[in-house]
Amino acid sequence: MSGASRLDINRGTTLCMSVSARPSNFGTRFHNHLYVALGLDYIYKAFAVSNIAGVVAGIRALGIRGCAVSMPFKEAVIPLLDELDESAAAIGSVNTIVNDGGHLKAYNTDYTAVQTLIARHGLDPAARVVLRGSGGMGKAVACALRDAGFADGVLVARNEAAGQALAARCGWTWQLDVPEIRPGDLLVNVTPIGMEGDPEAQALAFTPAQIAQAGTVFDVVALPSETPLIVEARRQGRPVVTGLEVVAVQALEQFVLYTGVRPTEAQVAAAVAHART
Amino acid sequence: MSGASRLDINRGTTLCMSVSARPSNFGTRFHNHLYVALGLDYIYKAFAVSNIAGVVAGIRALGIRGCAVSMPFKEAVIPLLDELDESAAAIGSVNTIVNDGGHLKAYNTDYTAVQTLIARHGLDPAARVVLRGSGGMGKAVACALRDAGFADGVLVARNEAAGQALAARCGWTWQLDVPEIRPGDLLVNVTPIGMEGDPEAQALAFTPAQIAQAGTVFDVVALPSETPLIVEARRQGRPVVTGLEVVAVQALEQFVLYTGVRPTEAQVAAAVAHART
Repeated sequence: MSGASRLDINRGTTLCMSVSARPSNFGTRFHNHLYVALGLDYIYKAFAVSNIAGVVAGIRALGIRGCAVSMPFKEAVIPLLDELDESAAAIGSVNTIVNDGGHLKAYNTDYTAVQTLIARHGLDPAARVVLRGSGGMGKAVACALRDAGFADGVLVARNEAAGQALAARCGWTWQLDVPEIRPGDLLVNVTPIGMEGDPEAQALAFTPAQIAQAGTVFDVVALPSETPLIVEARRQGRPVVTGLEVVAVQALEQFVLYTGVRPTEAQVAAAVAHART
Repeated sequence: MSGASRLDINRGTTLCMSVSARPSNFGTRFHNHLYVALGLDYIYKAFAVSNIAGVVAGIRALGIRGCAVSMPFKEAVIPLLDELDESAAAIGSVNTIVNDGGHLKAYNTDYTAVQTLIARHGLDPAARVVLRGSGGMGKAVACALRDAGFADGVLVARNEAAGQALAARCGWTWQLDVPEIRPGDLLVNVTPIGMEGDPEAQALAFTPAQIAQAGTVFDVVALPSETPLIVEARRQGRPVVTGLEVVAVQALEQFVLYTGVRPTEAQVAAAVAHART
C-alpha cells in the first residue's frame, strides 16, 4: 500500500501520463483517484506536447509505464512503437502505449470501449448505423461497430475522401448529408458538434425529427457530458450512449493495461465522479 | 495553493525530476516535502536511466521544468543542452537542467553548494587543501575551493591523468598518496571511501593521525551522513563539513532554480529530515 500524499512519492513510484495538443484533466484525475483508492504507488499527469518523437524517446528513456495518446498524434505515433495490439492494428490508430521493460505496445481503448458499450447497451447489429464524422475517433467507433456485426451503415462526412475510405473499410456507404432516418436506426455523432468551445457547441448533429426515429442515439462528445444531442434524445425518451461512458470505459481499460488491476464498478464510478470535478 | 494529496495532481501540475544510473531517494522526498509545505503545485520523481539523449528529448517534449543529473551523465549531457551557466562552465560538469519554455540551461549546484558551505563554515582560503578524488564531484569541489581563493592544494588521486589535469586546473599539485599533513590543512574526501555499500565503507580516507592535524575535515560522502571519517573527526573535536550539508544545500539551490521560491531555514531543515526517513 502506498499513501495518498505527495509526500509518499518515491524513486520507485511509477509514472503514467497522457499527451495531447490540448489535454483535458479527466485522465489525470481519474487515474490518480483509482491509484489512491487501490493503494497503488503510481502517479499520472497529462502533458501538452507538440513533438511526439520526443515524447516516445522520453517514455523509453524514463521508463514511463503507460501513455495515453490523443489528438493529433494517434496515427503519427505508430512508426515510433514496437508492436500494435489488434485493437490498434484494426483501425490504424493508437490511443494507448504500454511500456513493458522498454518494449512499447500500442492499443486503441476507444475501439475496445465502444465494443464494450455495444454489449452493455445491447445494441442490435441488425440496426442500420448512421454515423457522422470521419476523423480518428470516427474510425475507432465505425470499426468497432463493423466488428460487432453492424453490416449496414451510412457514413456521413464533409470530407469526401476520408468518408469514402472509412465507409469502404466498413462495407458501408458514404453520403455528404444525413439520409432519411428509418425507425430503429442507430444515430452516432463523432463530430465536434455539441462540444464545449466548438463553434457549433449549441447545435445538434441530428435534428429532433431524426432523433424521433432513432433506436439509440450515441454521442461521442464527452464535454459536456449532457450535450444538446443527448439532452434532446433524453427529452424524447430515446435510449442514449454518452461520450462520458466512452471516456470512462476507455480510461478504465488503460488503467487495467497499466496496472494489471481491475477496479470494482463502485471504484470506477467514484473515480469518474472525482474526474468530473 | 495546491493540496498535499495525489488526488490534487492536475494537467497543470509541474513535473521536476532527477536522472541517474542509480538514483537515491533524497531529492524526491526533499523536493516533494517543500512543494507541499509551500503549497506549490509541483511533483518530483527520480528516474533510473541509461540513455541521456532520450532523457533530454523527453524533457523538451514534455516540458519538464527541472532535472537533476547525476552519475554518469554530468559531462555527457552537455552537448545536448542550450546554455551553460558559469557554475557548470567553470568545471565542465552539469548537475542541474532548468527548462525555460524549451530553452535548457545547465547549472552545477554542487559547485555553488560548496561555495556556500565554504562561506557558512568560514573556511580560511589561506589553509592548504588536501583533497582526495578526481571524479566529477571532485572537480566541482576542487574548483569551488580554487574559486574561493584556496591557492595552495594537493590533489591526491590514483588516476594520475585525471589527478594531474584537475590539479593543473586549480594551480595545485598532484600526488599519488596523501602528503604529510600540516597543522590547519583542510582535508577533503571526494572518493567513495566510507560510503554505504562501497567495499571501503568502513575505511577512513585520512588516518586518525592526519585528522588530528586538520583545520577542518570535509567529507562529501552523504550516505551515511555520519561517515567513519566524520565520526573520527568529531571524536577528535575537529570542525567538520558533511556530505549531507552538500546534498541539502545543492538540492535547495535546485529547488530555488526550479520554483523561484527560497524556503526558510526551518522549512529546509524539515525537508531534509523528511528526505532522510
